Amino acid sequence: MGGFQFALASGDAAGPRLGRLVTPRGVVRTPAFMPVGTQATVKGLTSEEVREIGAEMILANTFHLYLRPGAEVIARAGGLHRFMRWQGPILTDSGGFQVFSLARLRRLTDDGVAFRSPLDGAEHLFTPERVLQIQRLLASDVVMPLDVCLGYPADDARAQEALRLTLLWAQRSKAHGAGEGQMLFGIVQGGFSPAMRREAAERTVEIGFAGYAIGGLSVGEPREMTGAALEAVCPSLPADRPRYLMGVGAPPDLLDAIARGVDLFDCVLPTRVARTGTIFTRQGRVNIRNAAYREDEAPLDAACRCAVCAGYTRGYLRHLFNTDEMLGPRLATYHNLAFLAHLMDEARAAIAARDFERWRRGVLEAYTTAW
Amino acid sequence: MGGFQFALASGDAAGPRLGRLVTPRGVVRTPAFMPVGTQATVKGLTSEEVREIGAEMILANTFHLYLRPGAEVIARAGGLHRFMRWQGPILTDSGGFQVFSLARLRRLTDDGVAFRSPLDGAEHLFTPERVLQIQRLLASDVVMPLDVCLGYPADDARAQEALRLTLLWAQRSKAHGAGEGQMLFGIVQGGFSPAMRREAAERTVEIGFAGYAIGGLSVGEPREMTGAALEAVCPSLPADRPRYLMGVGAPPDLLDAIARGVDLFDCVLPTRVARTGTIFTRQGRVNIRNAAYREDEAPLDAACRCAVCAGYTRGYLRHLFNTDEMLGPRLATYHNLAFLAHLMDEARAAIAARDFERWRRGVLEAYTTAW
Repeated sequence: MGGFQFALASGDAAGPRLGRLVTPRGVVRTPAFMPVGTQATVKGLTSEEVREIGAEMILANTFHLYLRPGAEVIARAGGLHRFMRWQGPILTDSGGFQVFSLARLRRLTDDGVAFRSPLDGAEHLFTPERVLQIQRLLASDVVMPLDVCLGYPADDARAQEALRLTLLWAQRSKAHGAGEGQMLFGIVQGGFSPAMRREAAERTVEIGFAGYAIGGLSVGEPREMTGAALEAVCPSLPADRPRYLMGVGAPPDLLDAIARGVDLFDCVLPTRVARTGTIFTRQGRVNIRNAAYREDEAPLDAACRCAVCAGYTRGYLRHLFNTDEMLGPRLATYHNLAFLAHLMDEARAAIAARDFERWRRGVLEAYTTAW
Repeated sequence: MGGFQFALASGDAAGPRLGRLVTPRGVVRTPAFMPVGTQATVKGLTSEEVREIGAEMILANTFHLYLRPGAEVIARAGGLHRFMRWQGPILTDSGGFQVFSLARLRRLTDDGVAFRSPLDGAEHLFTPERVLQIQRLLASDVVMPLDVCLGYPADDARAQEALRLTLLWAQRSKAHGAGEGQMLFGIVQGGFSPAMRREAAERTVEIGFAGYAIGGLSVGEPREMTGAALEAVCPSLPADRPRYLMGVGAPPDLLDAIARGVDLFDCVLPTRVARTGTIFTRQGRVNIRNAAYREDEAPLDAACRCAVCAGYTRGYLRHLFNTDEMLGPRLATYHNLAFLAHLMDEARAAIAARDFERWRRGVLEAYTTAW
């Protein structure tokens, strides 16, 4: 863990926290949203643009990069940073989430999870050790252990068994260790029962990691259930380690989780919906394909100070989407990520001013859509 | 034609020419290649990037913009330049080429060409006057008259009849005139017979235009036939007016046409093939999807000084195309257009140094593919 440090400027185990994750590749001011660069590219954008938007850390997907171009190819190219020209810190997931999404293509044992590549049907085996070796080849900065991911709903018996394996694999991951210059997080699972979530948190903390991810949430469960799980987990996590809520990126959900003590987020939602013309604004999301925007000379979001809002009209963006022009998804992706970066800037400023709750209510009041 | 001027620094009616097309929106140094922004966007790139690449003038398609978002919509948005944020000069075609590509959807009379929209089946009529009115609404800088486009092969009788209508429409276009601040070119047709091409040139010049386009070439005919047509046409055009060869963009073809006295070019080829991974290099085109490039650390073209070649490896580009990532087409498009901009820079320098023919032979010697 040389070169890594997490310092809280304000906050404690629960409630909104202002922090700094110091890595050898730069400082990440938290709370922070990490744009997703699944295949070593944040879709449509250059790494320079992702930085310009204000992102300080990104996420890449081990499963995808392992299959294409291959972890060894990336290692020989000098690691993921050099391969994709991103200088800042990178978090890689373990690939578990994607493997468990393969439903019929996988076979689970205590040793790990065997699966067939959706690309060519070839057999592969992910073990806790193997996914850490792969992430070592990728040379990412923050690495994740293999865990068992459930969907929603999942009964307590299934959640209990998934938790057993996740903890077993967490121990093996801790024993194996991350690579030189890498920070290993633990992942808290535990289904949708607050009691099991609390137990999961405590037992993961017993094993001891440099940071803690909260997995298996925001997979379709009611929002109250997500909140209850976070309230069960966060107070059980050490205050001085970063917490990362996996797969959450809708503006209201980000603010809810920050309020409960989460520091880091990633999600494909902001970029995925951007590619079909769904735009984040401070009044809620809008679909820019709508004919109402045909002659709209306003920017995507009047409150936004990103380069797209500074230069382009809704009417032009609507035209780009209406004619299936590549520039549409590119500009919308840029805007949605900038929107979240600015939202995180404001969240940090509000925490620093001890005004987070009032600020959050104000944002949510103006935000008129569900996500 | 206020604010427009074409000045030759070297060359005359035939042979390579070095010129400057002065427009109210900036100077275009010729020979020049105009990137195509069919739907008010050079696919995948911002207008700032198109300028950064070195393009001084672009082309947009009247037919597409007339259908979507509509010429009136663009007029109300302040014209095409403001709509798409391109400050430099824009040439718009007449839409004729696209209408004649609609084969079964069109009906031709002396008055004009009626067609059904491929988008919704609605009936439209393009007349020489109407396409100039549309281009006036777009507020482009250089506008084209409606002409009759043939494919290859076309017998002399069909070519003669197409030429008759093209000249009739040219007279009506001249009589109608372009808008304030617009420059109207004539289009030389005449099929594939040098004699008919020469006649077409002479009769178009008699009508008198601010510049001359050469249409109906590079549509599948043998390269020698293209060359013979250019040799028939160029000496019949006034030396002091710009000549624009429509739809030519393959590097060897550009050099051939410059040698024969052409000043301006446009073509979708460089950008269209870029989107499938075909990259221009000084050794000829390569397909970056090829497995041979998987671990290639070299830039796309070692001789290129564009931002993509400065920053990205062939291996990374190959990965982007192999995984269908949007950034691949975007970066390849950027490179191919930069490649052509640099080629035109060199061509102009060679003409200025009275060394064009030697330079051209050297380029073609190193260039090992057919286009």
